[in-house]
Amino acid sequence: MVSRSELKYIQSLGQKKYRDIEGVFVAEGPKLVKELIESPNVQLEKIYALNEWLEENESFLKSLDVTVIDETELERISQFKTPNKVLAIVKKFETKVVPAKEGISLVLDGIQDPGNFGTIIRIADWFGVPQIICNADCADMYNAKAVQATMGSIARVNIFYTDPSAWLKQQGSVRIYAAMLEGKDVTKMTSIREGLVIIGNESKGIDKDLLQLANERISIPRKGSAESLNAAVATGIILSHLV
Amino acid sequence: MVSRSELKYIQSLGQKKYRDIEGVFVAEGPKLVKELIESPNVQLEKIYALNEWLEENESFLKSLDVTVIDETELERISQFKTPNKVLAIVKKFETKVVPAKEGISLVLDGIQDPGNFGTIIRIADWFGVPQIICNADCADMYNAKAVQATMGSIARVNIFYTDPSAWLKQQGSVRIYAAMLEGKDVTKMTSIREGLVIIGNESKGIDKDLLQLANERISIPRKGSAESLNAAVATGIILSHLV
Repeated sequence: MVSRSELKYIQSLGQKKYRDIEGVFVAEGPKLVKELIESPNVQLEKIYALNEWLEENESFLKSLDVTVIDETELERISQFKTPNKVLAIVKKFETKVVPAKEGISLVLDGIQDPGNFGTIIRIADWFGVPQIICNADCADMYNAKAVQATMGSIARVNIFYTDPSAWLKQQGSVRIYAAMLEGKDVTKMTSIREGLVIIGNESKGIDKDLLQLANERISIPRKGSAESLNAAVATGIILSHLV
Repeated sequence: MVSRSELKYIQSLGQKKYRDIEGVFVAEGPKLVKELIESPNVQLEKIYALNEWLEENESFLKSLDVTVIDETELERISQFKTPNKVLAIVKKFETKVVPAKEGISLVLDGIQDPGNFGTIIRIADWFGVPQIICNADCADMYNAKAVQATMGSIARVNIFYTDPSAWLKQQGSVRIYAAMLEGKDVTKMTSIREGLVIIGNESKGIDKDLLQLANERISIPRKGSAESLNAAVATGIILSHLV
């Protein structure tokens, strides 16, 4: 059973304001929730699940607080049109502004679409990119659609929000690459060991001040007619050539 | 003004069944509609637009049939939560099953998510891939979200639905590549002039019968921890290395 006050509480977490106040976010679906349960640094505050899910997963739930609910209740608390068996309230991660790590990091400027934003987190995790620096114009990493699109990678990449220009200026001699429509052909570049890659908004591009800090403009050569590529797809292509 | 029967008609086009019967689909938003108006082989049957859009675009509308509507009417006929100024009823394209063309073609197996499906069409258009062969398990190319995600590329790529195994068997000596989690490292391959690339469903992979027809299994090396990549991102990465 979900009480009336629990229902209101869970629904409120659909808004960033309340996620910030409560310090938690919502993750939904068997695959994602299982990934989070198995991630060492993730704290799950509460799980709401259909009995069917509970029976399948009982063995590894240990001391987790699970409330069994029915389909109607799940529909009420879910942020999706097609709820999927289980919903978890998860403690936000401790993210802090840290210096550029060894290896390659991503700097995101104005990636507003939560699905694209989450997909980029998943791509970073695939390519072993340890951190993502975002400006305030990016989607909230704890938005339900973003969390969903990360497929669990949200627990493995250090993501923090800051003023990227100010942050980049403190990073010493690290090389900075800006993904642009015109620039050095990334498919002909040799892989790099270290560097920061700036990805901008599909329609607005990269902020002028941020762009000035870049040492090199890189681009994906167009062979056909599409005007641009989706930001997540572009990130995947660039990392596959640079990493 | 939108009449009651027009409203019902437009809303019915949210379903594949009615799109098939009527031979039309719906495209929304200034960018997409403009791209379709400018595409030589696209027939727009009717446009519904806010006055604001009409004033900005009057110069190139020529003989197109435009009905001016208000925000409330647009909300009623739109398939999106956030309607965007203009909606067009567009005649479906003539697509026919054709032999593998010169160059690279994509074969899609079970790409069900309309957003991913549309993004793949946009990627194909970017890389100059002329045709996409889809099985019946793929999303409908005329689904509103798919059309949206193509950003106009839907008018420039020949997409057809068929039994890919049967079709592939008729293609003579063309080389067939299957995108897999395990296979030859695509980032180390040299580009190819000709070939068919099979992309499967993210969770189910490629159908067994289809996979047997492949000459080579290719994969994107994983350097981090994510379990998989989104099918559209994987397609973008593979094409950037092969084209």
